[in-house]
Amino acid sequence: MNRAEKIVNQFLAHRLVTNELIQKIEEGHYQYQPAPTSMTAQKLVTHMMTSFYKFAQVAKIGNLEPFQSPAEETESNLQELAESYTEKTVNVLRSITDQELDQIIDVSAVFGEKLPAGQLIKMALEHEIHHKGNLFVYVREMGHTELPFYVRKQ
Amino acid sequence: MNRAEKIVNQFLAHRLVTNELIQKIEEGHYQYQPAPTSMTAQKLVTHMMTSFYKFAQVAKIGNLEPFQSPAEETESNLQELAESYTEKTVNVLRSITDQELDQIIDVSAVFGEKLPAGQLIKMALEHEIHHKGNLFVYVREMGHTELPFYVRKQ
Repeated sequence: MNRAEKIVNQFLAHRLVTNELIQKIEEGHYQYQPAPTSMTAQKLVTHMMTSFYKFAQVAKIGNLEPFQSPAEETESNLQELAESYTEKTVNVLRSITDQELDQIIDVSAVFGEKLPAGQLIKMALEHEIHHKGNLFVYVREMGHTELPFYVRKQ
Repeated sequence: MNRAEKIVNQFLAHRLVTNELIQKIEEGHYQYQPAPTSMTAQKLVTHMMTSFYKFAQVAKIGNLEPFQSPAEETESNLQELAESYTEKTVNVLRSITDQELDQIIDVSAVFGEKLPAGQLIKMALEHEIHHKGNLFVYVREMGHTELPFYVRKQ
């Protein structure tokens, strides 16, 4: 298995669990907040979907432009958002060459240092796991008790 | 930096944030549950602390014995629990040699397959990030609004 495929597998091991949780969020719960200062369920899911996609794009193209784009997400159905972003993200990750993974990217404007693209993807994965951990609590609070394991073996 | 020191840094980048959250949990909130089927705050923290320590021990000694030990944790103060387990875990991680990191361990009784010790430590790290993501929601629901970033640069 090449490095890109390994990364795709690591991504899906968590993202497919994220998407399973999202499947349980009904539209009446999109504005759900565990606490007044928490992100709403909709904002959290949108943040997870757009962030990993941007991380993957930065790793691919070697500059921060995707993080600087002002475009806001307009898809309001969370299941459709999850499906389309997961597919787009897999496509970018799968296309990343070993040479691109090893390139040092100047991400100091956002992350305070220059980092290899592969390291950025690792950060994206940790970001996904962190927020999926948040989402588990949200979904349990919505009344769901049958929840998946936090990682799915690929 | 040798591999063990890198692992210690990766561990502390997340564990120090976990511990910062634990500092905010007052004794009156130890039994707090976000939902009736959630772990209590005390159970969640104890699970995080004992799990990483066991993962580190398995990686070090090369067998599942630490996971099979029936000993229950009796320390009831979460701040003291966090401090002592973090120290013990760092000591084990720091002692792991490159040869031990590469050994294949038969963890099939728990994880369904044989895995290199280094891979087990990676799983422990993802487990920590996941549950820390849960804990962020717990602590925000306890009324705290000034929370740290989810990872601390080492």
